[in-house]
Amino acid sequence: MIDTATAPARVIKIAAGKTSVHDDILACEEPLEIQMVYGHGNNRIRKNIAVTMRTPGNDAELAVGFLFTEGIITSGSELKSNPVETGNSIAIELDESAQPALQKLERNFYTTSSCGVCGKSSIDAVRTIGFAAGDPNNFIVHEEIIYTLPMLLRKTQDIFEQTGGLHASALFDLTGNLLLLREDVGRHNALDKLIGACILTGSLPLKNRLLLLSGRASFELIQKAAMAGISLVAAVGAPSSLAVELAKEFDMTLIGFLREKRFNIYSGTKRIAMGDSSV
Amino acid sequence: MIDTATAPARVIKIAAGKTSVHDDILACEEPLEIQMVYGHGNNRIRKNIAVTMRTPGNDAELAVGFLFTEGIITSGSELKSNPVETGNSIAIELDESAQPALQKLERNFYTTSSCGVCGKSSIDAVRTIGFAAGDPNNFIVHEEIIYTLPMLLRKTQDIFEQTGGLHASALFDLTGNLLLLREDVGRHNALDKLIGACILTGSLPLKNRLLLLSGRASFELIQKAAMAGISLVAAVGAPSSLAVELAKEFDMTLIGFLREKRFNIYSGTKRIAMGDSSV
Repeated sequence: MIDTATAPARVIKIAAGKTSVHDDILACEEPLEIQMVYGHGNNRIRKNIAVTMRTPGNDAELAVGFLFTEGIITSGSELKSNPVETGNSIAIELDESAQPALQKLERNFYTTSSCGVCGKSSIDAVRTIGFAAGDPNNFIVHEEIIYTLPMLLRKTQDIFEQTGGLHASALFDLTGNLLLLREDVGRHNALDKLIGACILTGSLPLKNRLLLLSGRASFELIQKAAMAGISLVAAVGAPSSLAVELAKEFDMTLIGFLREKRFNIYSGTKRIAMGDSSV
Repeated sequence: MIDTATAPARVIKIAAGKTSVHDDILACEEPLEIQMVYGHGNNRIRKNIAVTMRTPGNDAELAVGFLFTEGIITSGSELKSNPVETGNSIAIELDESAQPALQKLERNFYTTSSCGVCGKSSIDAVRTIGFAAGDPNNFIVHEEIIYTLPMLLRKTQDIFEQTGGLHASALFDLTGNLLLLREDVGRHNALDKLIGACILTGSLPLKNRLLLLSGRASFELIQKAAMAGISLVAAVGAPSSLAVELAKEFDMTLIGFLREKRFNIYSGTKRIAMGDSSV
């Protein structure tokens, strides 16, 4: 993990009336301006798309993942070249033939912090953009594999161990091997980075993959997972009502409160196998 | 707490290989469209400002708090009447004489999930809008009072106890009495609701008050607290680097990792008194 992801800090620790001074490490949070360059010939346009507060690192993945999960681009083939990261600004160059969904930008004008998109119409939007229902993504995973995911995340989540301040998204295969991990102060950013990384390596849709979220499952996170073609999302924390609704609508498996040898299934029980797997 | 804040759900609980079916309760998440009505005479305009994913309840407070912490309105005196809540949409009517900062809306066009505003320029923006430095808000609180805050929050935070899925913001006086508590699936919404409630009762700036956050402290949350005139913020979780920077810039006290009889001070140690308070 690159070293701009954390920042040193002098901290006064108070414990039961005792004071001590320590050098501590904080999760870094800085603004990233995302620009998009599109159009062709003399009509090439550079447009400011968004400013997001993020933990520096994997900025190209974040920007590409953001454009994809917002529905502005629909595949990595629309990218002209690898994005250039310049500090707290990044420009994503689209191919001259790309047709970005600029009306999605309009929609963003009316969204704000932690906002996915608006209720029912947003579920329709995900349906349009996401991978078609009926995709043969009906794998089965044994409960024992689900139990192991948080521990594998923790072993790999290096910044969290230092700062206690980062969310993580992790991608696993069906046998529980951790394939990819991304961290950020914003949980939506961590997932956008992960999805962006998969777009840049051409590995979407994410069939036969398990997604683990280090915190709670909101509507927005399930929406992003659906758009990336993920059929099973497990969260360490609680899901919201709309997250469950969306998971059911898209025939996804949604697991919450995954801790030690316990979890809750809110949708898609059919993908979880129970019982003794050794016989 | 109103009953639209939670939603029932049928859940399959898995624990060490055993399956059982339960009726569970989820934290409700739904979109809220915030509109603003402003201008006078024939130039009265209704404008869509934002859609935010929130837990229903205290929507008027949320909308008013949002307009204030975004810098669009600067005081409750700009409100014409008490806002009318109509399901998932709310219109905030401004007085005909109000001069909303419409350029702040432009800025929002370029912000996104969990985004406060952009780095350095945003710190300047808070300085302009927030309460002037030099305000005599240099109270002193004893460490023993700080220790008690999370327990008081938990005792009152009723939805969290049911769902495990909500963030909370709580306001205390200097002797540790809990004055106000607001909850939401979004931590920024919980704080906007709390600040909006104070605007509607005319109690801003929040001098001689302590703010407790149930989770982590991001830049955006410290920004909102600063704008409401709060000088001491304590978070149960970790602060980000930019949260600490902003707290220092505004001479605020920022406490993190407040758990049992421990906490860390990242800024503004001068407001914390240590030692035996009984002698």
